[in-house]
Amino acid sequence: MKNVTSDRVRIKDGFWRFYADLNRRVTAHSVYDRFKETGRFDALRCDWREGEPNRPHIFWDSDVVKWMEGIAYLLEEAPAPDLEQKVDAAVAEIEAHQRADGYFNSYFLSVEPSKIFTDRDRHELYCLGHAIEAAIAYHRATGKERFLNCVLKYVDLVYRVFVAEGSAAFVTPGHEEIELALLRLYDYRKDPKHLELARFFIDQRGNNDKEDTRDCWQADRPVREIREAVGHAVRAGYLYTAMAMLAATDGDEALKTACERVFSDITTRKMSVTGGVGAEHDGEKFSYAYDLPNSDTYNETCASIALALFGNAMQELVLDSRYGDAVERALYNGFLAGVSLDGDKFFYTNPLEIDRKKYARSTYQPICERVKVFRCSCCPPNVVRVLSSIGRYMYTVGENAIYCHQFASSEVKLTVGGKEALLAQETNYPCDGSIAFTYHGAPTTLYVRIPDWCVEYEGETENGYAAFSVSDGDRVEVTLPMAVHFVEANPYVQDNAGRCAVQRGPLVYCMEEVDNGENLRDITLLENGEAQVKTEEGLPAPVLYMSAERRPKTETLYALKSHARVPFTARLIPYFAFANRGASDMLVWTMVK
Amino acid sequence: MKNVTSDRVRIKDGFWRFYADLNRRVTAHSVYDRFKETGRFDALRCDWREGEPNRPHIFWDSDVVKWMEGIAYLLEEAPAPDLEQKVDAAVAEIEAHQRADGYFNSYFLSVEPSKIFTDRDRHELYCLGHAIEAAIAYHRATGKERFLNCVLKYVDLVYRVFVAEGSAAFVTPGHEEIELALLRLYDYRKDPKHLELARFFIDQRGNNDKEDTRDCWQADRPVREIREAVGHAVRAGYLYTAMAMLAATDGDEALKTACERVFSDITTRKMSVTGGVGAEHDGEKFSYAYDLPNSDTYNETCASIALALFGNAMQELVLDSRYGDAVERALYNGFLAGVSLDGDKFFYTNPLEIDRKKYARSTYQPICERVKVFRCSCCPPNVVRVLSSIGRYMYTVGENAIYCHQFASSEVKLTVGGKEALLAQETNYPCDGSIAFTYHGAPTTLYVRIPDWCVEYEGETENGYAAFSVSDGDRVEVTLPMAVHFVEANPYVQDNAGRCAVQRGPLVYCMEEVDNGENLRDITLLENGEAQVKTEEGLPAPVLYMSAERRPKTETLYALKSHARVPFTARLIPYFAFANRGASDMLVWTMVK
Repeated sequence: MKNVTSDRVRIKDGFWRFYADLNRRVTAHSVYDRFKETGRFDALRCDWREGEPNRPHIFWDSDVVKWMEGIAYLLEEAPAPDLEQKVDAAVAEIEAHQRADGYFNSYFLSVEPSKIFTDRDRHELYCLGHAIEAAIAYHRATGKERFLNCVLKYVDLVYRVFVAEGSAAFVTPGHEEIELALLRLYDYRKDPKHLELARFFIDQRGNNDKEDTRDCWQADRPVREIREAVGHAVRAGYLYTAMAMLAATDGDEALKTACERVFSDITTRKMSVTGGVGAEHDGEKFSYAYDLPNSDTYNETCASIALALFGNAMQELVLDSRYGDAVERALYNGFLAGVSLDGDKFFYTNPLEIDRKKYARSTYQPICERVKVFRCSCCPPNVVRVLSSIGRYMYTVGENAIYCHQFASSEVKLTVGGKEALLAQETNYPCDGSIAFTYHGAPTTLYVRIPDWCVEYEGETENGYAAFSVSDGDRVEVTLPMAVHFVEANPYVQDNAGRCAVQRGPLVYCMEEVDNGENLRDITLLENGEAQVKTEEGLPAPVLYMSAERRPKTETLYALKSHARVPFTARLIPYFAFANRGASDMLVWTMVK
Repeated sequence: MKNVTSDRVRIKDGFWRFYADLNRRVTAHSVYDRFKETGRFDALRCDWREGEPNRPHIFWDSDVVKWMEGIAYLLEEAPAPDLEQKVDAAVAEIEAHQRADGYFNSYFLSVEPSKIFTDRDRHELYCLGHAIEAAIAYHRATGKERFLNCVLKYVDLVYRVFVAEGSAAFVTPGHEEIELALLRLYDYRKDPKHLELARFFIDQRGNNDKEDTRDCWQADRPVREIREAVGHAVRAGYLYTAMAMLAATDGDEALKTACERVFSDITTRKMSVTGGVGAEHDGEKFSYAYDLPNSDTYNETCASIALALFGNAMQELVLDSRYGDAVERALYNGFLAGVSLDGDKFFYTNPLEIDRKKYARSTYQPICERVKVFRCSCCPPNVVRVLSSIGRYMYTVGENAIYCHQFASSEVKLTVGGKEALLAQETNYPCDGSIAFTYHGAPTTLYVRIPDWCVEYEGETENGYAAFSVSDGDRVEVTLPMAVHFVEANPYVQDNAGRCAVQRGPLVYCMEEVDNGENLRDITLLENGEAQVKTEEGLPAPVLYMSAERRPKTETLYALKSHARVPFTARLIPYFAFANRGASDMLVWTMVK
């Protein structure tokens, strides 16, 4: 089974078109401008000197190349000459300042050349990983070879230093990413050296005497022995993605089992209802099982992306709709909350509750408004590249089978039975659950994921997919009933005991103070009340108006339990749309009766 | 109006006798032993030198003299020759090492003599304040004058340095206590100099150019302008107590108004249902209004004591049962949780929830088992002195009126209309709510506080007190119906939205994991279910057995809201009794339906 790459998919209109356009119009430019003004592009000249402003940082190159990757996907879809020119200029700087042996990292070359390859926690191979992905995408989009050649030269150096000579001060990178990038490179170029290098970094992890074995950096055991998700959630997610890709490439059953195990640990014990992962802000890491707090959860935007990538990789390995379910949950909620509706502001962390009064406490609290750039600004360019490559998550092609995991008004070019085929989706998803597929190509079976939220679906399913035999010209209609659901968490999730999340289709909803007044936690939604679904200007998905009640205000601090309630209509908006109208309290998990 | 001092009250049996005996038998000795072995008594010799073990600390003297004060109250009640001998030995050390000018502080004399009276945040006057209280108590109990003379000499020095010469590097102490102590000394000795010194420290606070004005140390404004409770909760409580005492002494209406205002702010916005105050662990301070978290609240044992002292002082100033209500809430819950049922282990902080899994989080979490001594061990000797002076909180005598604020099987000697009178209480309070008073003395009016929790009381009340005319030999019976109540917090208390505390009489109840299994937050008590009240071995108050339900265990992380419930009988114990059976999760605020 093979995922269909984003260049084969065209998003036509609807929800993801809204975001693709926003990205092309605003996000891609804004991220460039912020990176330009903070010196990230200038740093590529490797001529920064002590005392000058904009001191480079070890992860700056990754910011830049992730943005370049995002632009490459935009270019696959349609020309954007100004953006392409900016990418070319960056490539020229990299090419010009790459060391003769292939090494390139703007921080180390300008600030600490003596520290090259001396510290596994300083992101050199992480930066290279993102550069590999970007170079592949740019080559695929434009046919231009300079960036890819730079990267191939650097990869050769890494192979020599880490595998052939073992002369670096560490064995595996502290921040994973290069593993999955090398596997993409192998997939793109079929050079066995790249597969070997990927395998080396994966197999050596937790499996050598040179490195510390803290579990917080996924270094406590060999990867095939991983039993649960621990440590830095983004690093972990990138590693697990690479493990799944390698398992598929090598047919490695032990690795596949480890991947299934850890995916299950995440999605049944360590994932917010929004698909946010990595609850513990200290170390940006997975917390213990069922520790899914609300206002003080971390849930980095990049961690939701990593979960989507992991699910996407698992789709090539195991036929089970739960992978697509998790990808959907992450993309529509935890990931998408990372960008503002006007496209130029970002969250690094994505809380499930904001209580601004708590800012007076000494404990960790999330910011309540998005910002244009962070000092550690990994998320914004990650948003750019995901929004421009959303097609990547939609389809897998197997032996005479097409698997549709995600829904969007779109067309995809596929190879079925060795021949070109075309599959179109007409849908207004996730605003409603009707999807019409039109197929042109050789006879095959179309498998359509029936999402986990769609408990009302009555047709037969196989591994969570509804199967349809299709021949040239066939039209298949699938309707996913989209009721407003009250979702409860496992009783072990102590922070949400007695509370429900409201979900409609893949979208998790939340209440904001700006709509519903203060003291959001005291609001109760009525299980048998009204729930109006309304499409409103400026939002790519509907809002909900629901019957609710709250306690009247009172002067007393403590009193006998009362039954007095003030009825009102609560306005709920999609979680991804929170914090777009100024500072406001917000709540996902609400009381229901 | 005048509070009756503890030496006039004899606790005969019942609840507070249980604790008085425990104190006499265990607590008083254990605190001494711990302080002895940690060098606190030896430090009084002022001969510690750098490099030796048990380096003295700036607040050690306060630990020692608070213990001495507690012993003095024990001696008022009955002889305890071994303890008296230990107090005498300590007095002898203080006397022997007091400087010629009267100064005494074991830390400064042995470690930093050059720093005497240079830093307002280093507890010298706080230590002296506690010494004053201890010396009065010891003099009253034994008639021995040496300790009191030491203290009077030191107070003279303080008067000279701070008032006459103004030669100290600061004006008012960073940690309040001496203010209320000086007012007790004035009350005991009627030396106007002591009143003047107390007035000086109170009036200069927030009212001079020499000192920083951070609100966290109650230094942001003159005391008559205080509008809300801020800063370190123990320091604040001691200051407010002194303000109330001074307002009563001086008939100072502006000061009285400030006291009423800040008492109201505490009890209607900043007090846990247990009478715990000072929610913010960072700075041990009051948090913002209605910020009353559970597992991460601070609620220092000493802060509940300070609240009880403040309420006690207000009883001399304003006739209103809410002062006695707060004293009762603090004493039976937030304070008493500070000591173990076997008397020799203590909590410094008193959370309303323990979820031991949260210990894996990076954020502040309370300890879940009491310890015998702390490095900063202010609470244990404070427990000793409160348990041996509980009579202090019970009565106020006004012009031809006796006010009974607290209930205990006891006898009190009073002066009514210039003549000796005797009032006995027979009661099993708080196990049940029947109280029989027997009075011997001149005709007067007995006012009995009808507690705020007793909403079922049907008799007439005046400022919250039921009035009874009594003559010699009269017997008055008061019955306070003691139902099991579900208490809810103000909707602004976001942490407890949708939850209730269970209260019976003055006792707040809690559930422990050891009785009720894990996931306490997922338990729902049934509003119309059974609630059995049972007296059980080893506990001085009853436990409750209540109809409850919880969700069945499940493998899924998220699912549609279910109505499946497993019924069971929850066991609730008085909050003060939690954490006496090993490490266990605990919860006060529970769901009710």
